[in-house]
Amino acid sequence: MVLEKITKENDIKDIPEDQLPLLAEEIREFLIEKISCSGGHLASNLGVVELTMALHRELNLPEDKIIWDVGHQSYIHKILTGRQEGFEHLREFGGMSGFPKRKESLCDSFDTGHSSTSISAGLGYVAARELQGGNNTVVSVIGDGSLTGGLAIEALNNASQLKSNFIIILNDNKMSIAENTGGIATLLNNIRTAGSYEELKSGVTTTLSRIPVYGDRMVGKIRKAKSSLKQLVIPAGMLFEDMGITYLGPVDGHDIEQLRKVIRLAKRVNNAVIIHALTKKGKGYEPAERHPARFHGTNAFEIQTGLLKDKKNKADYTDVFSTVMCKLGERDENIVAITAAMPDGTGLNRYARQFPERFFDVGIAEGHAVTFAAGLAAAGMRPIVAVYSSFLQRAYDQVLHDVCMQNLPVVFAIDRAGLVGSDGETHQGVFDLSYLGNIPNMTIMAPKNKWELSDMMKFAVRFDGPIAIRYPRGTACDAFKEQRENICLGKAEILKKGKEILLFALGNMVETAWRTAELLSQKGLCPTVVNARFAKPFDKKLLRELAAEHSLLVTLEENVANGGMGQRILEFVREEELYDQVQILAIPDEFVEHGNVGILREKLGLTPEQIAQQLGGQEQL
Amino acid sequence: MVLEKITKENDIKDIPEDQLPLLAEEIREFLIEKISCSGGHLASNLGVVELTMALHRELNLPEDKIIWDVGHQSYIHKILTGRQEGFEHLREFGGMSGFPKRKESLCDSFDTGHSSTSISAGLGYVAARELQGGNNTVVSVIGDGSLTGGLAIEALNNASQLKSNFIIILNDNKMSIAENTGGIATLLNNIRTAGSYEELKSGVTTTLSRIPVYGDRMVGKIRKAKSSLKQLVIPAGMLFEDMGITYLGPVDGHDIEQLRKVIRLAKRVNNAVIIHALTKKGKGYEPAERHPARFHGTNAFEIQTGLLKDKKNKADYTDVFSTVMCKLGERDENIVAITAAMPDGTGLNRYARQFPERFFDVGIAEGHAVTFAAGLAAAGMRPIVAVYSSFLQRAYDQVLHDVCMQNLPVVFAIDRAGLVGSDGETHQGVFDLSYLGNIPNMTIMAPKNKWELSDMMKFAVRFDGPIAIRYPRGTACDAFKEQRENICLGKAEILKKGKEILLFALGNMVETAWRTAELLSQKGLCPTVVNARFAKPFDKKLLRELAAEHSLLVTLEENVANGGMGQRILEFVREEELYDQVQILAIPDEFVEHGNVGILREKLGLTPEQIAQQLGGQEQL
Repeated sequence: MVLEKITKENDIKDIPEDQLPLLAEEIREFLIEKISCSGGHLASNLGVVELTMALHRELNLPEDKIIWDVGHQSYIHKILTGRQEGFEHLREFGGMSGFPKRKESLCDSFDTGHSSTSISAGLGYVAARELQGGNNTVVSVIGDGSLTGGLAIEALNNASQLKSNFIIILNDNKMSIAENTGGIATLLNNIRTAGSYEELKSGVTTTLSRIPVYGDRMVGKIRKAKSSLKQLVIPAGMLFEDMGITYLGPVDGHDIEQLRKVIRLAKRVNNAVIIHALTKKGKGYEPAERHPARFHGTNAFEIQTGLLKDKKNKADYTDVFSTVMCKLGERDENIVAITAAMPDGTGLNRYARQFPERFFDVGIAEGHAVTFAAGLAAAGMRPIVAVYSSFLQRAYDQVLHDVCMQNLPVVFAIDRAGLVGSDGETHQGVFDLSYLGNIPNMTIMAPKNKWELSDMMKFAVRFDGPIAIRYPRGTACDAFKEQRENICLGKAEILKKGKEILLFALGNMVETAWRTAELLSQKGLCPTVVNARFAKPFDKKLLRELAAEHSLLVTLEENVANGGMGQRILEFVREEELYDQVQILAIPDEFVEHGNVGILREKLGLTPEQIAQQLGGQEQL
Repeated sequence: MVLEKITKENDIKDIPEDQLPLLAEEIREFLIEKISCSGGHLASNLGVVELTMALHRELNLPEDKIIWDVGHQSYIHKILTGRQEGFEHLREFGGMSGFPKRKESLCDSFDTGHSSTSISAGLGYVAARELQGGNNTVVSVIGDGSLTGGLAIEALNNASQLKSNFIIILNDNKMSIAENTGGIATLLNNIRTAGSYEELKSGVTTTLSRIPVYGDRMVGKIRKAKSSLKQLVIPAGMLFEDMGITYLGPVDGHDIEQLRKVIRLAKRVNNAVIIHALTKKGKGYEPAERHPARFHGTNAFEIQTGLLKDKKNKADYTDVFSTVMCKLGERDENIVAITAAMPDGTGLNRYARQFPERFFDVGIAEGHAVTFAAGLAAAGMRPIVAVYSSFLQRAYDQVLHDVCMQNLPVVFAIDRAGLVGSDGETHQGVFDLSYLGNIPNMTIMAPKNKWELSDMMKFAVRFDGPIAIRYPRGTACDAFKEQRENICLGKAEILKKGKEILLFALGNMVETAWRTAELLSQKGLCPTVVNARFAKPFDKKLLRELAAEHSLLVTLEENVANGGMGQRILEFVREEELYDQVQILAIPDEFVEHGNVGILREKLGLTPEQIAQQLGGQEQL
């Protein structure tokens, strides 16, 4: 095993050149084996094996900095910096993260998780190096999908002014998670079509003159290999060249030697330089090559077949959303659906096939998705923006300024709201009740079970203003089937009438509240369980009515306490002096790391057992 | 007066062609006269007189849609839709807004205020038109400055896929508020240099073939006028053409006839089309032409000289920030300052002149500004991001995901926090305590007076984590000069020790609390006044200590109540059962319109008189 020789950063430099292809093979085997057991991001990592190896051969870590955009493709980087053992507990609580983490290794220079941040962060490192008089190399590795995010272009716009070296590797696999669309994709596609890999050299000649010392000699060398396609290659790179960024490429992203050469070349450029590397998502594992989106993030699977080990038995909320969207699309021609590059993840894929003309995948561009929806709504349509909770953070101002300020009827279908588990801090959807809750005109709902999600969607598309439905990752609750009151604005639902203790729970915390009540009943207590349904506006009338028979109000939500439903309710009940005691059960003021959701809930004290113990043990009860 | 003939939309179509230049002149006189009295946005409006006239000649309002990016340049649009009288009370409470408002006129199709939204919103209108089978024209007018905002590029990326008409007018005056920088500016500058106005026609020929019916005939006509510079013009427009967007231009943005012709041409294109119009900010008023940034948004001024009518007597918080930044820059070489296109507005201009190498104007790109700062901080620098409260909303996820999650020492100097007055809803800085307050690891301060801002800045640059200082627009408070305790993390400051009522006030509300206390003392009450200093973490110890002698805790903050300091404090004091009564004084759950800040405070019930009356009248006191 060559891989065994890698125990820390830079060890790869001691591997003989002729063994590098073998190392690449072993890395792929290692990845496939480990991820087939643990689950994780596979396809994107298989695509950057050679690219990562080439970077680690040519750079010195940790002095040199590699910033992995999004970061789910950093597994090989982790392997090459001596973290193979971490894969035993990849993405488990207390185990290794699936993303770069500065606290995990000095070689991880910037934490990522959301898309399109790497060029901005890299520019920060470059600017600091210039001021500090350093001479390290800074490399940002960004996918073509991430390049559709406005943040990346804002950064490119600034990178173009640099007077010192900054390497941006455009890892072009023609995909974000799904296939890319839009003008930038077209542009990159033109480049791909125009230049074959051999054109690397000819494309390079035009920029070599900027490179000191070696430039001229290399031009001479390369000219010999010049191809007649040169003219096609040059205009294709012009987007970048026009902006003042040197363009090198396209280069075969699976040819280590080519990659190493172009990295060495790039290091000599005295401004920002893009290396355009063409890679194949899932490279080297046939099922992943065939279904790269399926193997983007996967659960444990059988290596032979690529099939998942555990078949999903029950529908998750995404499935329910998916089904209801198709029905809504049939009933109402004004309904349009928007995703930011996640037709599969959000469950919009079926709707998209059925109503392609009323479906918009805008690319990784949450801000645009929301303002685009605002425009559609202003023009009389009923847009539904399907998005993950943590990614909608990207569009806070667009929700506030473009949708809510004009009170436009845009529906936000917020998936992955609450704890998401193994993706960790960057993906936990535990802020939406706060960042949406402080915006005037915004209505926020959360369903207790799968039927309620359906009912809420039907309510939302008829509602005359901005409205959000947040629902969690994973299996949809199918309890409380019989309890299905009509949805009315700002009305909660009593699931179980008791006394003394009022459990006022939102969304998936309704089930927790119910089980807490069962446990408390064993202690002779008889709490009331209310399904809040609306986090904003919450049901003031019901809270007033129930105050007479309850002394303790407990609010439950899977969101940070700060700015959440509980604090808003508390202000109201304090104002009206409604309850003797109020307790807010929510997530404390800290980021929640990766791990199994059950374990995380326990760490946060949010299991029914913990809550029952806490409430049942109170003196005043 | 030709202008008198304009009483409603489309009236301009009845003005004889030869009187249009006269109308333009009258509009300019009208603008200068009105804004010299009321204050408002002058330079940008003077720059789009002919452009707006040409649009109104060629479009039918309100069926056709014009979306004004940012919107401060919509004054002529307001004039041409019959709102001249509105200028009597421009930007006053209850008077006409300085921005497009759908509730003000059917001809205002989309409310704007923040930058770079217009292409996204326009695309929404276009998509709706396609689905609804309409045939109206949609035009987004965007400045070259706004084009550096990532949202605009996200939208362009999508616009390129259109199969039907969408007109984007690039109003290129080479400036945002300050001068533009970056690759996109370079690119546009290349276009300007390459093509003179006459090249319009030659540039156009290359795209005419896409235009049905008239295309070929026009090509023939235009070829006769073809100039030898054609080749220079074509590659210059290639950024857009490569993305699949038709490019027409550059065209003289002050030549109505040229503009009308190119608009008519653009209407026939069956995809997205950019009209590149070159305009001059401040056109026609010499002081504004010479100092466009000064006349971007101005207070009342003398027309003859261009000098402000009311000279500023006292320093505002921006001045204080400006002065202290220079001192900090001298003392510490690790300090770097970042602005998103507002070196003047934020007061960074002096620092920028003194330390050009440690100053970064990233363009209108708040998201990038923050992640860039995170990169700088990760590399050991001390970045200070100077930004307006309402614009930092744009970077909520970058603050959360890139700065706070890694606990990086980035300082946010948040100007215009609280009510800003005449710019209205889109610019009120009344959400930052909420959207920053829900983020773990974030520390938030607000100074009571100008000396405290200075002290807090010194504290912040030595603080080991993300930290924000929020301070309001306008004159800096110079009371409480003697009260200048050292700043300690999470420590409040007792300004006046009393009993029963505890006024716990943040930032500019400290002065309000003080005056409230004075008024209450006239009623025989003796409230304690505390300067909170830290909105997060707030001073728990002091709140515990003071609970013994106070039954009523009143929190005061110029921010929405939802998610603000008061709600967070309430949860704490409720948990520890510290006060009999708690009252949160803050802004209610609604957007606050434009108007004099004093009037707005009164409408919101936040004047000392109102607060004193409310508190003094309570039975339990």
